[in-house]
Amino acid sequence: MIGLGLGNEKDISINALEAVKKCNKVYLESYTSILQTSVENMEKFYGKDIIIANRELVEKKAEETILKDASEGDTAFLIIGDVFGATTHVDLALRAKKAGIEIKYFNNASIMNAIGVSGLELYKFGKTTSMVFFEDNWKPTTAYDVVEMNKKNGMHTLVLLDIKTAESSKEDILKGNDKPLPPRFMTVNDCLKQFIEIEKEKKKGLFDENTIVVGCARIGCDDFIVKSGTVKELTSFDFGGPLHCVIVPGDLHFMEEEFLNSYN
Amino acid sequence: MIGLGLGNEKDISINALEAVKKCNKVYLESYTSILQTSVENMEKFYGKDIIIANRELVEKKAEETILKDASEGDTAFLIIGDVFGATTHVDLALRAKKAGIEIKYFNNASIMNAIGVSGLELYKFGKTTSMVFFEDNWKPTTAYDVVEMNKKNGMHTLVLLDIKTAESSKEDILKGNDKPLPPRFMTVNDCLKQFIEIEKEKKKGLFDENTIVVGCARIGCDDFIVKSGTVKELTSFDFGGPLHCVIVPGDLHFMEEEFLNSYN
Repeated sequence: MIGLGLGNEKDISINALEAVKKCNKVYLESYTSILQTSVENMEKFYGKDIIIANRELVEKKAEETILKDASEGDTAFLIIGDVFGATTHVDLALRAKKAGIEIKYFNNASIMNAIGVSGLELYKFGKTTSMVFFEDNWKPTTAYDVVEMNKKNGMHTLVLLDIKTAESSKEDILKGNDKPLPPRFMTVNDCLKQFIEIEKEKKKGLFDENTIVVGCARIGCDDFIVKSGTVKELTSFDFGGPLHCVIVPGDLHFMEEEFLNSYN
Repeated sequence: MIGLGLGNEKDISINALEAVKKCNKVYLESYTSILQTSVENMEKFYGKDIIIANRELVEKKAEETILKDASEGDTAFLIIGDVFGATTHVDLALRAKKAGIEIKYFNNASIMNAIGVSGLELYKFGKTTSMVFFEDNWKPTTAYDVVEMNKKNGMHTLVLLDIKTAESSKEDILKGNDKPLPPRFMTVNDCLKQFIEIEKEKKKGLFDENTIVVGCARIGCDDFIVKSGTVKELTSFDFGGPLHCVIVPGDLHFMEEEFLNSYN
């Protein structure tokens, strides 16, 4: 299980690259994050054919694919970020262990630590949360509730933003067609609008248009953006391509403020 | 600013290695963590002489060393783990920015995300804390207080353990001698004993000898250990060489328990 880090195909570690080169089969997890490079670039640089592993393959067909290959010879499972950022990977590792397969982990950067480039102290972050795309009848307020809890203790909240890969349109689902839509990802703008929408319902005074928040894009890449400002300012700011995330700061130390300001 | 990850000299990323090779000067931060390799191995593998940067150099003499070099040409500052795990690195970056020096970051694994190999979900960790070596008149209870806060919300607590590098003995300080003692690091055993000591004073019922905790050693290295058990069991278990850390679990999901058990 190999973490690729957050940038391009060359953010893999030397140890991990050596391991990939020795593997008979190389899978790439494709459903919890988005690559900042192409599969072609990876195949060329790693010198290996890459098998794309979507959620269905990992969660329902691992026994006859990844786990079968891993019981027969060295098999790499590549994960954007670090190895255990998502429950689905813990679950895969557990199934591998039960099948008697020995696992070697190659850690790498994930958004959970790379967010430190914002200048906000990592040990002052409370629980991490996610904002998902609202639907007509499904508007979960989890992210708002976590911000409330963390703020109460003076802590910052890292809000990870939804990614939809391999969605099918409602029409295609009804017709039984398997035509996935292009992937879409939530922007800082979308997230802030949804926080305001929850605020209107919950009315706990956590967000208004003057609340200071931090919008981030492409953390871990050369062209990353960290921008602090009011909800109003950041709702209309163009952060560019994926991935985005939001930090809702708790109590800010002056060095943290100074660091944030150095980006503006 | 380059994160080296948690293992040996080959846990650096390809992108970061290419950057190091282009630098005129290469500094290695030596006071917030402990290498799992030797400086000689690093120098050989990176093809560069390495300047050891202790706390005094970074915090008091950076202007005439690192920052001077960085204003004159490409300069690498190597950090064990990720780039912004400690306040001292944020401070250095801020001073570099003020001096008009452009900074490029190369992220890598840190204990904050690599701890995911325990199988405990990263998003269920609350605030991270540290346990420092108690002294006769200095027994801070911060770690205990943070565990209390996190447990109240069902969350896990990652407890990082103290490292003493370049200490001088009281005798040598009094005599004005500069003879640093060998580095020492806190073990899981030490940490648990100190939690019990705080418990005796605070009496909030967070720890007794039957409390389930998780001891970890050398996370990110090939010979890492994750071991769950009672305080009594782990207080006498030999976790081997540094670095160690402790997880005080909050509410455990059955998959988390199953994963922990797979290590025992």
